[in-house]
Amino acid sequence: MKPVNHIKIKKQLSVNELVKQMSSAGVLGAGRLGKVVNICESMIKDKQCKVFLGLAGPLVPGGMREIIINIIENKWVDAVVTTGAALTHDLGEALGYRHYQGSADADDAELRKKGFDRVYESYMPNKIYEGMEDFIAKNFEKFKGKKSIKDFLWELGRLTPSKSILKACFESKIPVFCPAISDSGIGLMVWGQLAKGKQSETRAFEDLKEIIDIAWTAKKTGVIYFGGGVPKNYIQQAMQFSKKASYGVQVTMDRPEPGGSSGAELKEGISWGKLNPDAEFVDLICDATIAMPVIYAALRERL
Amino acid sequence: MKPVNHIKIKKQLSVNELVKQMSSAGVLGAGRLGKVVNICESMIKDKQCKVFLGLAGPLVPGGMREIIINIIENKWVDAVVTTGAALTHDLGEALGYRHYQGSADADDAELRKKGFDRVYESYMPNKIYEGMEDFIAKNFEKFKGKKSIKDFLWELGRLTPSKSILKACFESKIPVFCPAISDSGIGLMVWGQLAKGKQSETRAFEDLKEIIDIAWTAKKTGVIYFGGGVPKNYIQQAMQFSKKASYGVQVTMDRPEPGGSSGAELKEGISWGKLNPDAEFVDLICDATIAMPVIYAALRERL
Amino acid sequence: MKPVNHIKIKKQLSVNELVKQMSSAGVLGAGRLGKVVNICESMIKDKQCKVFLGLAGPLVPGGMREIIINIIENKWVDAVVTTGAALTHDLGEALGYRHYQGSADADDAELRKKGFDRVYESYMPNKIYEGMEDFIAKNFEKFKGKKSIKDFLWELGRLTPSKSILKACFESKIPVFCPAISDSGIGLMVWGQLAKGKQSETRAFEDLKEIIDIAWTAKKTGVIYFGGGVPKNYIQQAMQFSKKASYGVQVTMDRPEPGGSSGAELKEGISWGKLNPDAEFVDLICDATIAMPVIYAALRERL
Amino acid sequence: MKPVNHIKIKKQLSVNELVKQMSSAGVLGAGRLGKVVNICESMIKDKQCKVFLGLAGPLVPGGMREIIINIIENKWVDAVVTTGAALTHDLGEALGYRHYQGSADADDAELRKKGFDRVYESYMPNKIYEGMEDFIAKNFEKFKGKKSIKDFLWELGRLTPSKSILKACFESKIPVFCPAISDSGIGLMVWGQLAKGKQSETRAFEDLKEIIDIAWTAKKTGVIYFGGGVPKNYIQQAMQFSKKASYGVQVTMDRPEPGGSSGAELKEGISWGKLNPDAEFVDLICDATIAMPVIYAALRERL
Repeated sequence: MKPVNHIKIKKQLSVNELVKQMSSAGVLGAGRLGKVVNICESMIKDKQCKVFLGLAGPLVPGGMREIIINIIENKWVDAVVTTGAALTHDLGEALGYRHYQGSADADDAELRKKGFDRVYESYMPNKIYEGMEDFIAKNFEKFKGKKSIKDFLWELGRLTPSKSILKACFESKIPVFCPAISDSGIGLMVWGQLAKGKQSETRAFEDLKEIIDIAWTAKKTGVIYFGGGVPKNYIQQAMQFSKKASYGVQVTMDRPEPGGSSGAELKEGISWGKLNPDAEFVDLICDATIAMPVIYAALRERL
Repeated sequence: MKPVNHIKIKKQLSVNELVKQMSSAGVLGAGRLGKVVNICESMIKDKQCKVFLGLAGPLVPGGMREIIINIIENKWVDAVVTTGAALTHDLGEALGYRHYQGSADADDAELRKKGFDRVYESYMPNKIYEGMEDFIAKNFEKFKGKKSIKDFLWELGRLTPSKSILKACFESKIPVFCPAISDSGIGLMVWGQLAKGKQSETRAFEDLKEIIDIAWTAKKTGVIYFGGGVPKNYIQQAMQFSKKASYGVQVTMDRPEPGGSSGAELKEGISWGKLNPDAEFVDLICDATIAMPVIYAALRERL
Repeated sequence: MKPVNHIKIKKQLSVNELVKQMSSAGVLGAGRLGKVVNICESMIKDKQCKVFLGLAGPLVPGGMREIIINIIENKWVDAVVTTGAALTHDLGEALGYRHYQGSADADDAELRKKGFDRVYESYMPNKIYEGMEDFIAKNFEKFKGKKSIKDFLWELGRLTPSKSILKACFESKIPVFCPAISDSGIGLMVWGQLAKGKQSETRAFEDLKEIIDIAWTAKKTGVIYFGGGVPKNYIQQAMQFSKKASYGVQVTMDRPEPGGSSGAELKEGISWGKLNPDAEFVDLICDATIAMPVIYAALRERL
Repeated sequence: MKPVNHIKIKKQLSVNELVKQMSSAGVLGAGRLGKVVNICESMIKDKQCKVFLGLAGPLVPGGMREIIINIIENKWVDAVVTTGAALTHDLGEALGYRHYQGSADADDAELRKKGFDRVYESYMPNKIYEGMEDFIAKNFEKFKGKKSIKDFLWELGRLTPSKSILKACFESKIPVFCPAISDSGIGLMVWGQLAKGKQSETRAFEDLKEIIDIAWTAKKTGVIYFGGGVPKNYIQQAMQFSKKASYGVQVTMDRPEPGGSSGAELKEGISWGKLNPDAEFVDLICDATIAMPVIYAALRERL
């Protein structure tokens, strides 16, 4: 049995040194954060392992966009699954809009008048929809024949006028999946075109083959989840029907007791054949905007 | 200012009488549960109002299937949006499988060997996938030309051999949407057919027109959410691009602080134009398997 | 393995019938609520068992006062441990004040001006302190020689001008413990007297003998916790140093992961010798103001 | 309105630089953590301000002991309020025991046999009680005349054979309060002496004068809470009856919705007169073992 070592802070500690101290404390949030970084390091360094990254929640309005782009550009992961909202926020910024620091106690009717959409305590300018509408309308013909959502998204990334998560995926040839893309601002912009009589050929089930193939053809698989939702579950089911994950990391504020997939502990996946019983894995209960920068900064030093 | 009235329990209290007492207490979980029932009653009774029901989480493994079927058969709601998992659990039961009472502390590797997939403390027999595969394979041709996910699901409901949520939707002509259907056991069964070279014509963005039209053509709209995820967000965005909700009810264990859509307070929707500033609405933090039966039993007495 | 039975709601269902249905569903919040009632029934009916009730959180501002008084008057429990805040709210109401229905979004500076203290969405009139000060000042001599907090509280209950939790404890001769009584409005009123040069002889450690003796001399013990905090922990440690609980029920919104006593799962107590490994026990994650009336109403029908 | 700046991670980032980036992102967990550090810096630097530190939860088993000792030795705070459990864990380590890294899924009956008490995923050797019993028995006479809990605790700190939180408080002359000291292992050891017929003169209400005086005589006050419980509430009520806090920081995993004091947002304190409406304050939802080292490391660089 290892003792809990008390964290000692010397001056000008680097983030990686702090995380090592947390790892040596070894328990609760700190210990788990330390373990998260160790497992991420292992799975990224493991040449045989394909890494699947699931992203849900307000990561772009929360200031995580640059880090996500770096993760993709570093090719630390082999596939990304995300929400339509994340891609909408990302596209909005690529089109020149920003998100703003606000208050969770704001008067929402007032914000409505001023043209800001609230995401807890960050604000998105409602004008973003105009910019996106123009952008999608102008480029709609280019989505012709994009039968899978992934191909639709890569094309969107290709078209994106400046650096973005989608562009990074396209340029680094990292497949990006978003099963519920219709549930997003981007989806609504496509609807705007359909409402004008245009057609979309993008199919609902098409991507399943590709994501399952990535796992199927890998020697090993690893999963990293920030938030739950469809991204986590979609990766989990790809593991179930191909190759159980050998590494697993989950960072979420959801809890297991309500029984939903988002908050389910990773170990539950062992019963489903989603996670290898011998896997290295850890669940961390933490706000993603705190955990992600710490994890990335520590990994950056190590990798 | 109304005083908090202390709840008084007389013998053989009906659920509806209890809820009225809670409403008269007026604060915290009890007060909110009372308000949930009052608002549901108002929106269901309001002939001008189209009601959208969002369902996420393990409602079928949690024993809520009969209640959901009743809600649909009663035509209390005009559209249902749900997760693929809920429909998979529902289909599994329609095919003769059951879910089982288990333990959150189970040995997951042992469960794996015994053929049970754990959903917190309920178990799903893994054999369900065999039954579903046969069922989908046998009927795959019938999904031909089902261009929208809703049409795909109605057909699935029509084909379902016994009472089910999907069958109730089909028979009552209640549209049922599931943007992330590919993220589910049903999705995987379709993938099984695609992997054999078959084709699915079901399109990713197709349903948006129908759900937005339902809201657009309504005099008023109301929303009821059990859980968050895609179902909630998909309804929310339909409101945003058509008609702000006049009534809103949310039951969830997710919290607003992480900033995701699932836990966002309904009032946030005012800034987006998803909720009318004058709407009657309430957020309730409660396990859905506790709240739903209480709400349904109270409404059943009132309606 | 028992199947999950879907809850069926017939018209004018009594609360107890609903709880039985939940018990038959058997999983998640509903199943746990069913189990809570079954275990409470067992421990209260068990003549050999001394029952310890721990109460924390805003139960009085939340409308639970009448139910708590009934539990005590029914002699369903043999000892009560609570927070100073609960007793302060209780005393306030016994002195003729009420709590009010408010809003969690209120302007707190405005409330301050109007003389209301906010407890999430209920309000307490600040005048309560004046009434309590008069009451304590007038009666201060009567606390002379009350060496234990329990004796102090029974005397307070005796003096209380109308029905109250404290009065019910005094009249039913149910010991009531409150280790952190100094951390409350009542504590502050005593401080007001000390500040004027008076003396309090009430001792910090005195009650430990009595609470441990109750458990020590019992054939069996059972614990019921609404909320965590000092009340839960104080009972837990009494079990540890006397007789492991044979029955355990916990209702809380706190979670185990931060590692604190409030959210700790009951099973953790087995390692400490606080809970019998063979005990019947269950943890329920639920707002106390929802769970308590349901539990009480069901028990009322059964007992 | 300030834009959300995306966090950029350069190699070998110090913790303080990371926190500055978080502060510049400005929203959600990251932004709030940034704000926590800024407000702590302000209140500690403010010579007119007396700082009250509330500590609850498993900080010692969680590896935070060294940091807490440093905070006290640095004299960053003017008063400490904590739980009896924290002091018990601290005393245990001062007597030569350690806490151990364990598992939340451990077999608690097995742990019981092996002599380990589980605190979520850390283990405390049960032998700690023997060491404490000897220590308290041997020194019991020295507590004679210690009429306040604070004096009792300072004496305990004085007697402690090696570095500890209590010893640091004693040596730095920082008052340490623990209203619910009887609710702890230390309390149980005193009970052991009382059970043998000895007497304790320590009084329940005695400390109120001292803590309120500290606030009363200060020009300004500031509060820092890790966890809620009695420590937070005891400081809050001291503010209410003396001088509203001008600075406030709260780090907790508890939530406001259940309405208890632990999870209450700091702004609620404005209605009570506990917090100045003009105060700088922030609530952070985060595991204390993650937040505390980050905050301390950043402050260490700044102060």
